[in-house]
Amino acid sequence: MAKGITTRADDYSQWYIDIVLKADLAEHSPVKGCMVIKPTGYGIWEKIQQNLDRMFKETGHVNAYFPMFIPESFLKKEAEHVEGFAPECAVVTHAGGKKLEEPLVIRPTSETIIWATYKNWISSHRDLPLLINQWANVCRWEMRTRLFLRTTEFLWQEGHTAHATHEEAEEEAFKMIHVYRKFAESFLAMPVLVGRKTNKEKFAGALHTYCIEAMMQDGKALQAGTSHHLGQNFAKAFDVKFQDKNKELQYVHATSWGVSTRLIGGMIMTHSDDNGLVTPPKLAPVPVVFVPIWRSEEEMALVTNKAREITATWDPLSYRIDLRDQYKPGYKFAEWELRGAPIRIEIGPRDVEQNSVVVVRRDTGEKVAMPAEGLREKLDTLLEDIQNSLYAIAKERMESRTYTVDSYEEYKARIGDGGFFRVFLDYTTPEAEQRLQDETKSTVRCIPFDAPEEEGPCMITGRPCKHRVIAAQSY
Amino acid sequence: MAKGITTRADDYSQWYIDIVLKADLAEHSPVKGCMVIKPTGYGIWEKIQQNLDRMFKETGHVNAYFPMFIPESFLKKEAEHVEGFAPECAVVTHAGGKKLEEPLVIRPTSETIIWATYKNWISSHRDLPLLINQWANVCRWEMRTRLFLRTTEFLWQEGHTAHATHEEAEEEAFKMIHVYRKFAESFLAMPVLVGRKTNKEKFAGALHTYCIEAMMQDGKALQAGTSHHLGQNFAKAFDVKFQDKNKELQYVHATSWGVSTRLIGGMIMTHSDDNGLVTPPKLAPVPVVFVPIWRSEEEMALVTNKAREITATWDPLSYRIDLRDQYKPGYKFAEWELRGAPIRIEIGPRDVEQNSVVVVRRDTGEKVAMPAEGLREKLDTLLEDIQNSLYAIAKERMESRTYTVDSYEEYKARIGDGGFFRVFLDYTTPEAEQRLQDETKSTVRCIPFDAPEEEGPCMITGRPCKHRVIAAQSY
Repeated sequence: MAKGITTRADDYSQWYIDIVLKADLAEHSPVKGCMVIKPTGYGIWEKIQQNLDRMFKETGHVNAYFPMFIPESFLKKEAEHVEGFAPECAVVTHAGGKKLEEPLVIRPTSETIIWATYKNWISSHRDLPLLINQWANVCRWEMRTRLFLRTTEFLWQEGHTAHATHEEAEEEAFKMIHVYRKFAESFLAMPVLVGRKTNKEKFAGALHTYCIEAMMQDGKALQAGTSHHLGQNFAKAFDVKFQDKNKELQYVHATSWGVSTRLIGGMIMTHSDDNGLVTPPKLAPVPVVFVPIWRSEEEMALVTNKAREITATWDPLSYRIDLRDQYKPGYKFAEWELRGAPIRIEIGPRDVEQNSVVVVRRDTGEKVAMPAEGLREKLDTLLEDIQNSLYAIAKERMESRTYTVDSYEEYKARIGDGGFFRVFLDYTTPEAEQRLQDETKSTVRCIPFDAPEEEGPCMITGRPCKHRVIAAQSY
Repeated sequence: MAKGITTRADDYSQWYIDIVLKADLAEHSPVKGCMVIKPTGYGIWEKIQQNLDRMFKETGHVNAYFPMFIPESFLKKEAEHVEGFAPECAVVTHAGGKKLEEPLVIRPTSETIIWATYKNWISSHRDLPLLINQWANVCRWEMRTRLFLRTTEFLWQEGHTAHATHEEAEEEAFKMIHVYRKFAESFLAMPVLVGRKTNKEKFAGALHTYCIEAMMQDGKALQAGTSHHLGQNFAKAFDVKFQDKNKELQYVHATSWGVSTRLIGGMIMTHSDDNGLVTPPKLAPVPVVFVPIWRSEEEMALVTNKAREITATWDPLSYRIDLRDQYKPGYKFAEWELRGAPIRIEIGPRDVEQNSVVVVRRDTGEKVAMPAEGLREKLDTLLEDIQNSLYAIAKERMESRTYTVDSYEEYKARIGDGGFFRVFLDYTTPEAEQRLQDETKSTVRCIPFDAPEEEGPCMITGRPCKHRVIAAQSY
């Protein structure tokens, strides 16, 4: 099946772009670096939002909304933060026909505007913890963009929490990276490594950053979500203090955490194949599609009525009947395969006669006849099977392509083939990481939480290390 | 009950601001003209979104996302449109540390970026209709802002549809204003007039604009939603043609329609009172709140357990138990009254003994004892009662304050007292409308769909009119 999709073997990057475009997920916009998220792609984002939002609320968070504009002076209040983000900012200098007195930056992330606001909300330990999330667009002026993975404007959520103690902030940052892990595993069917970023890779303004890292089919890493323990940095920058239980004034402790439309890129590169998109059922906008087959108006009425009869009591969001009469069934099969509907159901006059349907799995292509009786329950089981199978395959891939390597020579020879490399690398100073990046275009992706204690020499500097880290090339 | 709220009788404008601030709905942000939507206010917006989104989907629409940036040249392609919006635009001139070749406007509305995109999506009648909605932030640089009602940045949804014929576009524009009407009536409990804007008041770039207009408690009008039939204006500006069934090239017909966070302002000014916010139950983030009453730890355990027992099988989003131990019950009563929880339930040790609770309606203050058995069903009925009663009161107010007036002298004498005025006013040229605005600070709000045929002289110019219009002062 061609459909104009480059194969993964031929050119993985081009394959990715082909999938995004041909499966109608998104396209480049007339504005450089921005994308248009088309209904199919946005439908996946809506499912991501709904499910993540529920998980945030179950962990005690509420939503709010802060302005998209940040006075330039705010950004400058936290030294590391401005250094990290100022080069990527888009700046509004004129509005309402006049030059502004102070330029406004479009939020690249909202720590500064939010902490300027929290100053008025927090004065006592009774005001804490403050557990707020925001769904928003943000803007980072990127030089090289790629649909979903890195765009100038993107959609995301950003949690911003305030706590009375270091320990509580630490607990929150840790809790939220595990919410992301669970979401990635359960909904994206995407296994991830969970760990901490090195100082060189942490968020600009954080004490430390936790992350989930996924492995794409080409063996490259994708940072899929981050959770930052910000310590008292932003509270100090914006003078946010509270009276503790002993009536002493203390600076507030903070976290922030976010995931973005990038997750859709990760989902594509984890599961899709040379025939098009493969969507985990839990995130599929159309989990089950009926393609009725007819050659006459009479047959059309017959099969359409049967499909309607079968689905009469189903949740309308759980399936679609493709009734378009300008396309032949073969065209529809190919289109739904391309667009990643997890299950396709074929129903022709003979199926109606036998009171059965033909069920086709998108992930394996497996085709089986099923009785119309009790179909919904069978499909639910099948959708669960598909979800689990996608996860199992991705997990097996990640595990089989995670290598333990001790010599930098070997690392350099193999890094281009992709994979996660368990290596000794001294991240206590930037030296080894900088060489790694310059010489191999790879980085330390994370210090996994579950890295066992293990002593060995840094593969670059020879300095002693106490555990291995994960290094890889990445998106 | 004071709580620092100005009474409506004293100063309606200040009362409104007091409600927004003290009920913790929103606040002014450090960025001029922008607001921070706080969790209580955003919770209402989430309910608005969920319910409207469902109504859009039930009428065949899907969501997508278009860039927030619009090249300045796009805005200029439709002459009326640029004239209407250019003076309000915020402009990005620098990004990524460099001056941009072409300035980017932050969307004040998205017709131009969307029609530049639709050009690539539409080539045949098979691609039509295209029924797309977007949830987004937009920016209009307003001189005078007011929380929720008029802010520089606000949240909204904007539908943008494309059709093969004038009639289909007309049907869509008409259908969507009725979706808004139904939403306003059923969820906001806010009666509205439905009609057409005059040419002077229509959307910049539309053939005509339909609107819903609500009456606030002070008798002023609030434009609560608009639906525009754009004709072929944007298709011509962006050269969007399709091949019709006869293989002839035709320009596409368009509509757009939107409502915004302004609806929250309308809701406040329709129902709230001098004690605080009154929320229609269907939009209340916390429809039912339990305030347990205790004087000892023993009693606390007793009443809390009873509240938990009663609510054990309830939907967790349908109620809250206020367990905060740093506040007394009286403080909590006042706070929940201020924040507009539709039903408050008081439960103390004696109530537990009698297996009953005390139920208090926010709208009327009515207080009744109810048995704990079967409480959920009783509350559901009560919530429905409250919803209906709020609507009935607002409808009665709108009707009783709608006046039929024939003389301009009488109009000028009475307009300052508020109300909708059924008047003859010649809107075929701008003359009368301009005088109306200059001399009375009022405008034609709409030509109601249900205005009966009725001949009479324009109250300003004396020219003959064929029906009355609604004139009023407005927000």
